[in-house]
Amino acid sequence: MKASFITLDGIDGAGKSTNLNTIRSWFEKHQLPVLFTREPGGTAVGEALRKLLLDPTTHANARTETLMIFAARQQHLDEVIKPALAQDIHVVSDRFTDATFAYQGGGRGLPLADIATLENWVQQGLQPDLTLLLDVPLTVAQQRLSQNGNPDRFEQLDTAFFEHARTVYLDRAASAPQRYAIIDSSLNLDEVALQINQALAQLFGLNA
Amino acid sequence: MKASFITLDGIDGAGKSTNLNTIRSWFEKHQLPVLFTREPGGTAVGEALRKLLLDPTTHANARTETLMIFAARQQHLDEVIKPALAQDIHVVSDRFTDATFAYQGGGRGLPLADIATLENWVQQGLQPDLTLLLDVPLTVAQQRLSQNGNPDRFEQLDTAFFEHARTVYLDRAASAPQRYAIIDSSLNLDEVALQINQALAQLFGLNA
Repeated sequence: MKASFITLDGIDGAGKSTNLNTIRSWFEKHQLPVLFTREPGGTAVGEALRKLLLDPTTHANARTETLMIFAARQQHLDEVIKPALAQDIHVVSDRFTDATFAYQGGGRGLPLADIATLENWVQQGLQPDLTLLLDVPLTVAQQRLSQNGNPDRFEQLDTAFFEHARTVYLDRAASAPQRYAIIDSSLNLDEVALQINQALAQLFGLNA
Repeated sequence: MKASFITLDGIDGAGKSTNLNTIRSWFEKHQLPVLFTREPGGTAVGEALRKLLLDPTTHANARTETLMIFAARQQHLDEVIKPALAQDIHVVSDRFTDATFAYQGGGRGLPLADIATLENWVQQGLQPDLTLLLDVPLTVAQQRLSQNGNPDRFEQLDTAFFEHARTVYLDRAASAPQRYAIIDSSLNLDEVALQINQALAQLFGLNA
């Protein structure tokens, strides 16, 4: 069986951290080999770039930021994701290119076509087999974010930014429904877990 | 008069640092407003990326490295180069995109077409008005490099790397002779300065 590349995405406050545990449990239950990783980061150079990107004193403009994100992604693909898949290990990445379309495209206003050029440059056709898109209304996301401290650079951005990001996520999911599972993560944790387990089960042809 | 964008390029050991002083003196003599800057770097985020790139423990592959270099360049163009030119200040950059074609393309083997895609993404047609290409045989460059300590990451690379880089520089200069002045920097300092002064004089329509 070919190993699967799965990504988890959604706006800040959509519950990615919590639901990563759900995904972890599902792989444990089914005893499937899996590697969990995250973007931007996942490699030494990627973590250094992530630190630069999240530093509130970094004044990278949207185009610079996008190139840095794709630099981290290139290394992440070549050093972590592709080698794991080649060894038949499934890969789950906390964020991937959808986040760049949503945040740098929708949020910061970079033309989506420019992002697609870099996507093609870096991925050369490689796409996730499944993207779990955690979707919540902005009010829910903001309420969740306000409950944890340490706002980083992205979390200091305004409501319109996140509205645009959410719209881009949903547009992308609508344009490729075979690749995306839209998870309504405004529901309670058990109901969200059920949706995630069903999407994974469908991908692998297994019971939820 | 429209401000000019001038770049100084060439393999390590070709004498860029020394000849920057020649250029500086020429602008002083002619009392022309000029900004000196360098790549990768020239901005806060660029200097941070430069530091990462020159760190011998950084294991960025050629594609990752190229994206990081263009990230630094994007910020450098938007924050430094274009604003200066818009204020009628000439700009001299120690290295620019020719170095990426030479080092990451010629040296590290990245397809030149892939570099051209990023060049277009970042520069959107903007090109230097004049590139002073300092050219020396490899033996001269290596002799000069061995005379100063602190080899950085690039200086640890092998002869074939620099041979390929030099070839790409010369090919690019041959393909756009109106933009490049090839400076034979194996000559003595006065003779090199004369060639540089003549190239600048020709660009500005002034005496050398």
